[in-house]
Amino acid sequence: MGYETKSTLDTERSTAPGTGTTTKSCSMTQVVLRFVLFAATLTSIVVMVTSKQTKNIFLPGTPIRIPAAEFTNSPALIYFVVALSVACFYSIVSTFVTVSAFKKHSCSAVLLLNLAIMDAVMVGIVASATGAGGGVAYLGLKGNKEVRWGKICHIYDKFCRHVGGAIAVSLFASVVLLLLSIISVLSLYKKIR
Amino acid sequence: MGYETKSTLDTERSTAPGTGTTTKSCSMTQVVLRFVLFAATLTSIVVMVTSKQTKNIFLPGTPIRIPAAEFTNSPALIYFVVALSVACFYSIVSTFVTVSAFKKHSCSAVLLLNLAIMDAVMVGIVASATGAGGGVAYLGLKGNKEVRWGKICHIYDKFCRHVGGAIAVSLFASVVLLLLSIISVLSLYKKIR
Repeated sequence: MGYETKSTLDTERSTAPGTGTTTKSCSMTQVVLRFVLFAATLTSIVVMVTSKQTKNIFLPGTPIRIPAAEFTNSPALIYFVVALSVACFYSIVSTFVTVSAFKKHSCSAVLLLNLAIMDAVMVGIVASATGAGGGVAYLGLKGNKEVRWGKICHIYDKFCRHVGGAIAVSLFASVVLLLLSIISVLSLYKKIR
Repeated sequence: MGYETKSTLDTERSTAPGTGTTTKSCSMTQVVLRFVLFAATLTSIVVMVTSKQTKNIFLPGTPIRIPAAEFTNSPALIYFVVALSVACFYSIVSTFVTVSAFKKHSCSAVLLLNLAIMDAVMVGIVASATGAGGGVAYLGLKGNKEVRWGKICHIYDKFCRHVGGAIAVSLFASVVLLLLSIISVLSLYKKIR
């Protein structure tokens, strides 16, 4: 069998649906979305850790400094930063893995399997952090009169803007992770048909 | 070709990996885990909605009734009950779907695809509800002295036990959902090899 016919056979075999275990290349969407995930998680972390706000209250004659507001005052927000850091690290690793698979035109079923599973795990982690941060941030914004927890955002406005922004971006990151998990599962499904 | 050889050929074809689009049956694990998911989400909801506690404080001569503690006092806990109800409904539907696929010995790739995607979506919803409930429950347990939010669990002990129990069970439900998503993705993967 001449070299030419053999190589076309190979390419046909590798692209025929369901037979070859590798398709031509990981979809570009995976690579772009993973980079977006990295940018979102990093932004969310930076916005949260730069939320510190100190405040002086001026009473006649003597300025009194009230305690600074920062994310380290709340275990829920600490959990938020840790969880988003884990997701950020994962986004770096998975971006490199998908870019190299994209370059080598070999997005194997095993790779898609692992990405789909890890993406689902990360959805759980980032979603729980978004929930924890959101629950506490809402209390800061509205307070809770039944248990006499006063709102704080009228005093620490910058802090609350940062926390709100960080949580909004992490919600976006959760949706991106969910999309990535769905794309990986769909890519696996296409290998069967 | 005698009837006997034709039917064995069929069975071989339907079980040979990667060729038939249906395997012999949805795994029993899927069915059992979906039932466990239903039980966990239902238990978590019931424990949370039965958490109401009213309290009398006795001062010399006159008993004073302090406001009742119930989940409807906290938007985060209301979100928790709504999210777990959505997951409970989903667990009922997906249990019926997998049981019927199991009986008909036809766990198709399309079914697994949809289950894997829906499970991943539910992981996000239940995990975010667990995070929101957990963040607020922790504040009830420990308070936050930086913003002068007092703890409440020394007063509303029954309420806090219920909330803590409901959140622990919903964490378990999130893990079960993650397992289900992974099982569906693995079953899809096995159809390729």
